[in-house]
Amino acid sequence: MMKLHILGCYSATPRTISQTTAQVLELNNEMFLIDCGEGTQVQLRKHKIKFGRINHIFISHLHGDHFYGLIGLISTFMLLNRPNDLHIYGPKGIKEIILLQLKHSNSYTGYGLYFHELSSKESELIYENEKVTVRTIPLKHRVYTNGFLFEEKPGRRKLNIEACEKWGIETCYFNKIKDGGDITMENGELLKNEVLSFDPDPVQSYAFCSDTLYDEQIVPIIKDVTVLYHESTFLEKDIERCKPTMHSTAKQAATIAKTAEVGHLILGHYSTRYGDLALFEQEANEVFEKVYLAEDGKKFKF
Amino acid sequence: MMKLHILGCYSATPRTISQTTAQVLELNNEMFLIDCGEGTQVQLRKHKIKFGRINHIFISHLHGDHFYGLIGLISTFMLLNRPNDLHIYGPKGIKEIILLQLKHSNSYTGYGLYFHELSSKESELIYENEKVTVRTIPLKHRVYTNGFLFEEKPGRRKLNIEACEKWGIETCYFNKIKDGGDITMENGELLKNEVLSFDPDPVQSYAFCSDTLYDEQIVPIIKDVTVLYHESTFLEKDIERCKPTMHSTAKQAATIAKTAEVGHLILGHYSTRYGDLALFEQEANEVFEKVYLAEDGKKFKF
Repeated sequence: MMKLHILGCYSATPRTISQTTAQVLELNNEMFLIDCGEGTQVQLRKHKIKFGRINHIFISHLHGDHFYGLIGLISTFMLLNRPNDLHIYGPKGIKEIILLQLKHSNSYTGYGLYFHELSSKESELIYENEKVTVRTIPLKHRVYTNGFLFEEKPGRRKLNIEACEKWGIETCYFNKIKDGGDITMENGELLKNEVLSFDPDPVQSYAFCSDTLYDEQIVPIIKDVTVLYHESTFLEKDIERCKPTMHSTAKQAATIAKTAEVGHLILGHYSTRYGDLALFEQEANEVFEKVYLAEDGKKFKF
Repeated sequence: MMKLHILGCYSATPRTISQTTAQVLELNNEMFLIDCGEGTQVQLRKHKIKFGRINHIFISHLHGDHFYGLIGLISTFMLLNRPNDLHIYGPKGIKEIILLQLKHSNSYTGYGLYFHELSSKESELIYENEKVTVRTIPLKHRVYTNGFLFEEKPGRRKLNIEACEKWGIETCYFNKIKDGGDITMENGELLKNEVLSFDPDPVQSYAFCSDTLYDEQIVPIIKDVTVLYHESTFLEKDIERCKPTMHSTAKQAATIAKTAEVGHLILGHYSTRYGDLALFEQEANEVFEKVYLAEDGKKFKF
């Protein structure tokens, strides 16, 4: 089960009625925070997210609406005597910004605070545990920006218990079968693995792409993901704003979703100039069917 | 008329139900922002304060609950194409913190952004216009900290129109009278100024003192102010917490108010450990009568 909790999904500046970018992805019992606009710590509290469980924070780029809440969250973790290490992944410069502020407040975190600064223009593996990998998705924006691809690793094959009993396979061979191995019977007969096991559950994956100009170069990286979050700052009627600001329209987001054959598309990072978000969904639906609108506080389960 | 708008008055960390320190003082048509905890820009919007009118921001110290909202406000002023210059007064280091973040976001303010970094341990004049002065109040805290004393300059004397008519004073002498001058009549008789004019309106003043250990050394600086805002992070029952954290109790705040013979005392910067703020008022009232509780969103007029 993959859960996505949108804490904020508007561009530019926090307002009383809307928050800037931050979202929590739960995947295989890990809780990942993606971007951290001003006020994210309050959003985490408001939505009763156990944010002590967040050990990895991914920052797409150093525009304020994506990271001004990070220093506050780091400080609050300090006040709460957080025990776990905290890992920050973000553009080169993020470490200096955070440490400078901690230095001037004469504060030092009691927990381990580790920065993983990014500067590659190629997609790279930046995090891996037993069950999940995280890779960067290089994006085209006014400053150095990465999206992030979260992918479950394929699980082990599942035992076909009925078949194993039928062939009298002893339990000591079960791990070998789960790992894909064939079994040679005492009579010399070879039982192929697919007779004794089922395919593992399909893996789930999530691609976060914000902020970015329309860029087909990301398609091979995000191909076939379960869920794509792609920024749609503007509607097509304002497409002339995309180039100078290096943002995308809802239609462009949908075109990327269609080309990459993703399972679902979530739109977000709306300009605050628009009142009616339904227009974003309508516009994207002309190109791609499975479209959802991000909204502050909304939870998705896939 | 002096107006004080409390945007946030709790210590440590912003929560869904409470904000960290920020307040707007209106004095003689100037709007001063004092401290700027995370989320201050949203508080300004929520309380419908015309924050484009803020040209001077005073930061007491570089703990997050007093300045993490500053970079966001500066950035939002940028997005709003603010025309006026903005002046920031705060501890040495504040300029580097802000400019480093603007540099990494590849952003430059269209308006003039001026930093007035403070490092003196003595009270000093840091701002002055025709009608108001602002001086620092050196405080004792874990990092370099200043309170701020906002004072109206004495106005000109007021004409006693009846007396002027009685003595047949011509209007060309009115400015001289307002400036305190005596008038010599054609017959050689001297009319003393106090016969022809009244005292100017009494001046108003506001002293902001947060965060600080109990410190009687500030008394001569804040003597007789109209309103004193003094931090009261703790109640007396927790006084042992004051020394290591370098904060004050409500009783200590009241003792400073009494010793300095101020007009009114406002308490604030409460620790979030307390549920019932009335206990702060009760405790202070045992020492000093005119006590008010700061509350997020509360407006005072003096």
